[in-house]
Amino acid sequence: MSEKTIPYKIYLEEHEMPKQWYNLRADMKNKPGVLLNPETLQPMTLEELSEVFCTELAKQELDDTNAYIDIPEDILKFYKMYRPAPLVRAYCLEEKLQTPAKIYYKFEGNNTSGSHKLNSAIAQAYYAKQQGLKGVTTETGAGQWGTALSMACAYFDLDCKVYMVKVSYEQKPFRREVMRTYGASVTPSPSETTEVGRKILAEHPGTSGSLGCAISEAVETAGKLDGYRYVLGSVLNQVMLHQSIIGLETKAALDKYGITPDIIIGCAGGGSNLGGLIAPFMGEKIRGEKDYHFIAVEPASCPSFTRGKYAYDYCDTGKVCPLSKMYTLGSGFIPSSSHSGGLRYHGMSSTLSQLYDDGLMEARSVEQTSVFEAAREFARIEGILPAPESSHAICVAIDEAMKCKETGEEKTIVFGLTGTGYFDMVAYEKFNNGEMSDYIPTDEELQRGFDSLPKLDL
Amino acid sequence: MSEKTIPYKIYLEEHEMPKQWYNLRADMKNKPGVLLNPETLQPMTLEELSEVFCTELAKQELDDTNAYIDIPEDILKFYKMYRPAPLVRAYCLEEKLQTPAKIYYKFEGNNTSGSHKLNSAIAQAYYAKQQGLKGVTTETGAGQWGTALSMACAYFDLDCKVYMVKVSYEQKPFRREVMRTYGASVTPSPSETTEVGRKILAEHPGTSGSLGCAISEAVETAGKLDGYRYVLGSVLNQVMLHQSIIGLETKAALDKYGITPDIIIGCAGGGSNLGGLIAPFMGEKIRGEKDYHFIAVEPASCPSFTRGKYAYDYCDTGKVCPLSKMYTLGSGFIPSSSHSGGLRYHGMSSTLSQLYDDGLMEARSVEQTSVFEAAREFARIEGILPAPESSHAICVAIDEAMKCKETGEEKTIVFGLTGTGYFDMVAYEKFNNGEMSDYIPTDEELQRGFDSLPKLDL
Repeated sequence: MSEKTIPYKIYLEEHEMPKQWYNLRADMKNKPGVLLNPETLQPMTLEELSEVFCTELAKQELDDTNAYIDIPEDILKFYKMYRPAPLVRAYCLEEKLQTPAKIYYKFEGNNTSGSHKLNSAIAQAYYAKQQGLKGVTTETGAGQWGTALSMACAYFDLDCKVYMVKVSYEQKPFRREVMRTYGASVTPSPSETTEVGRKILAEHPGTSGSLGCAISEAVETAGKLDGYRYVLGSVLNQVMLHQSIIGLETKAALDKYGITPDIIIGCAGGGSNLGGLIAPFMGEKIRGEKDYHFIAVEPASCPSFTRGKYAYDYCDTGKVCPLSKMYTLGSGFIPSSSHSGGLRYHGMSSTLSQLYDDGLMEARSVEQTSVFEAAREFARIEGILPAPESSHAICVAIDEAMKCKETGEEKTIVFGLTGTGYFDMVAYEKFNNGEMSDYIPTDEELQRGFDSLPKLDL
Repeated sequence: MSEKTIPYKIYLEEHEMPKQWYNLRADMKNKPGVLLNPETLQPMTLEELSEVFCTELAKQELDDTNAYIDIPEDILKFYKMYRPAPLVRAYCLEEKLQTPAKIYYKFEGNNTSGSHKLNSAIAQAYYAKQQGLKGVTTETGAGQWGTALSMACAYFDLDCKVYMVKVSYEQKPFRREVMRTYGASVTPSPSETTEVGRKILAEHPGTSGSLGCAISEAVETAGKLDGYRYVLGSVLNQVMLHQSIIGLETKAALDKYGITPDIIIGCAGGGSNLGGLIAPFMGEKIRGEKDYHFIAVEPASCPSFTRGKYAYDYCDTGKVCPLSKMYTLGSGFIPSSSHSGGLRYHGMSSTLSQLYDDGLMEARSVEQTSVFEAAREFARIEGILPAPESSHAICVAIDEAMKCKETGEEKTIVFGLTGTGYFDMVAYEKFNNGEMSDYIPTDEELQRGFDSLPKLDL
């Protein structure tokens, strides 16, 4: 392939866009652990799951046999409004780094949610609408998921109730306002509107909230309202399924130009972006067709993969959700308040956890000042101000490109640029002012998180 | 052309991107008024202009004979990072409105500046670098231009000093922080750093600033520093030249699918986006090759076209800049503080002013609550949260589409979606809370602005 024929941005034609999602679990030899009912500790049945999620989504959650699932026509139509996302060749970054590596990034930030979250939000809203529901409830931390879901619900004329972690609600009034513009109602969590919220407020007056707590409130509210279900933006199998659109588009774009990546890098919080990006490539690796080096990048302050335990754990603080087998720091772990870089969730997708446990993937943790340094460098060179979450991947992509510079290897590096940082300027300001510090939890701090793991006799 | 072959988004291939800007003035029969030296009232010479602007940009400012100007290779390279911008077929909006009209919009918001401003910023930074300058100064109101210039200067390693209208500086700390992330220094205007700033502060203590005042400060600062020039993001001929990339891409995308628009709509503040969008189409109209209906949309609260005078006026409050012949409300006119919708400049591009005076273009004014209603409807249907400025064009595009619904005409409407509203959530919040009001200046208020027009004996 002649170098000059590869454009700065590879866009698929509309007719080249994927029409099916890819369900990686179908190809996995060791299947991820199933969800357990928190009361009986038995595997969740479709019936039980359908009380929490829409029935069709509950089916997707449990399906580990069908490799391809048709994307409904209405979702394809919505995808066409903001997809395909470009696969960008980072020519300017390569030049600046003076590296022989070839760097590509899949940019998912060109939509109003500012991230890849919309890929699953529109699917979940669609199935809710199909089921004749009135609305959905959810939680949001940084705000991308809440925004994405608000957009999706506005499109399908569904009510949307968002529990927003209180500290975000207060620090990110603009995120909240975008959601309101799309017609969602946004409640700071913990709140007085739920039992679990009132309990947490009573036990921890003045708490600034957490994702695990907001999840509990959203689940409780959905359960109490007629015609409502709970939806979640990460961690779950169904979410990873929808996010496979990222990897499928990336692979189609690479294939179009005959490019085979050596290294594929993504940031990892709950795992939806990373899981979506690597899915079709990991499938090839598992089937023994090709080999790739996958790197999950997580914050050193919330190191689920690199320092967590592989165990069944609660997904939420209130312990109302099913248990999931995952790399986890324990649902009682709360990252330091000095942490600004996103990816704060204590656990990880069960699929990614199994892949990591099987040695199919590497994980690295990075400190937040390095992350913001990479973010700023990237912004200045490539012209996109990245989300702090995405910048974890940028940081390791630059590291790998610099290794190539040392060794002279012309590796092809692909990373996921999951979103933009337009609503994260409080964190950037801290960094610009030199007021950002790094934080690595001590073994003792981690132990306190592990102590919150359920003592199960499975 | 079969309907179904037109995708949701038309992207040009990289090799189809324009390699020349189009200089509409070369084709105009009645040339726009030339800039006048504020002291001598004689036409500005290249020498005089070169004291303010880079020499190459001064040449472009004066050139009304060359229709096409090559885009330098380094600028093309930068353009490839964030362009081509998509021409989007608003299928969902059409369906929702149940209109037979076909609606397209050229979306310029997919870059970190959030608007079309980057198209000229990168050009102006390039010529500054070529001339061996150390840096540039500028003003910014809403912040798009300042952000765009910061990005462009970071790319070419130039210093960038931005005077930001004080009220924006205070209300939009995140805009400021984006600029700082790109390495720019941002000073609230009026400031103590300039003579004109000190004078204005002495006369109007506690003033929240204005664009005209920030321009004066930026010009003064550039004049005092060695190796600096002033740059401006709108109004000027050179800016309209660079922004012709919008119209050229739009035309190429339409031509690719054999589409001829009937109506072309753009918002108008200083005129750079509208001028850029319509340039190649207006050229065809002037040369008698085709006919199009052009509509400039401005806020009712700052109605330069619809209620202004066509006269020579100052471009800035401090009256340090050359005089320009334009539709103007007088440099003393200041829109009501209740105005949130952008497009606050008192004057208008001299080229657009001449075209309007020649009857080649229609102008309409719209009130801001209608603008935000259109913005919210568009956001919910098309999934993009638009900038208030761009929403002026959306508002009239919807009006025209609804007229087609009444008449049954299948008109093709193209409008410019200049940017996103991610940094305008204070205005959206006001709207969402029902606290936004309309404001139309009285004849007496306009008269006070006209009283500030220079009494010239030309």
